[in-house]
Amino acid sequence: MNNDFKYMNIALNEAKKSLKSDDVPVGAVIVKNGVVISKAHNIKEKTKVATQHAEIVAIELACKKLNTWYLNGCTLYVTLEPCLMCCGAIIQSRIERIVYATGNEKFGYVDSIGSVLQNKKSNHFVEVTKGILSDESKVLLVDFFKNKRN
Amino acid sequence: MNNDFKYMNIALNEAKKSLKSDDVPVGAVIVKNGVVISKAHNIKEKTKVATQHAEIVAIELACKKLNTWYLNGCTLYVTLEPCLMCCGAIIQSRIERIVYATGNEKFGYVDSIGSVLQNKKSNHFVEVTKGILSDESKVLLVDFFKNKRN
Repeated sequence: MNNDFKYMNIALNEAKKSLKSDDVPVGAVIVKNGVVISKAHNIKEKTKVATQHAEIVAIELACKKLNTWYLNGCTLYVTLEPCLMCCGAIIQSRIERIVYATGNEKFGYVDSIGSVLQNKKSNHFVEVTKGILSDESKVLLVDFFKNKRN
Repeated sequence: MNNDFKYMNIALNEAKKSLKSDDVPVGAVIVKNGVVISKAHNIKEKTKVATQHAEIVAIELACKKLNTWYLNGCTLYVTLEPCLMCCGAIIQSRIERIVYATGNEKFGYVDSIGSVLQNKKSNHFVEVTKGILSDESKVLLVDFFKNKRN
């Protein structure tokens, strides 16, 4: 559990990097056997590529680093509940466990809108932990959208 | 409708390129205002990157070509019913319409397992046409898996 806070802190620091390009601040870290395999942040606006959410970028980097699309034994830490696309990528890459900080009422497909990571019809079941550094992630997001409106 | 066959034929030719790297033969084409914006095929095994399905590659190429993550007015042609991840990417990129050739009973999230592209809880509704050159796509896939088993 202490490790969950440690890795989510790294994800939070990643999230802050998204602010430079006016991207929604979301960060992700992939860990295997206590080793950080990849770190990434949301760069959708920066790259103008729809798929470049923090989770996708982290998964792509991890596949390249481990030289396999099969990320068994990996845990993904992410500061915001993943959307449908990112849940799909988590399943495709066979990530074993995810830990997310705060929920996404509008677009989250782990618990909020759907629960596709724990669907019996799916070929892959993902362990889920939530609420780690939730307040810290939420403050970052709320401030971002407040600044956007001003 | 005739155009649907024309573009699906291009997607089928793309699908055949996946065979070179022993990837499941799936091809995708993105069209806007009668112009082919991008063409791609499944390169998951070739790249060893879990996200590199034909649809994702085609969406990423289209975003780069049009210099925007917002693919409004675009139609995606794909030879196999998209999985959860690819449906999510279709929503993220705001693709207006998809046309797919053959269904994917095990992993298809447009009609087979779920219908996430036409979910009222989603922020984006996608028009769907299916069955265009279905037999041609199915033969390609069945032959691929038959060869794999032998």
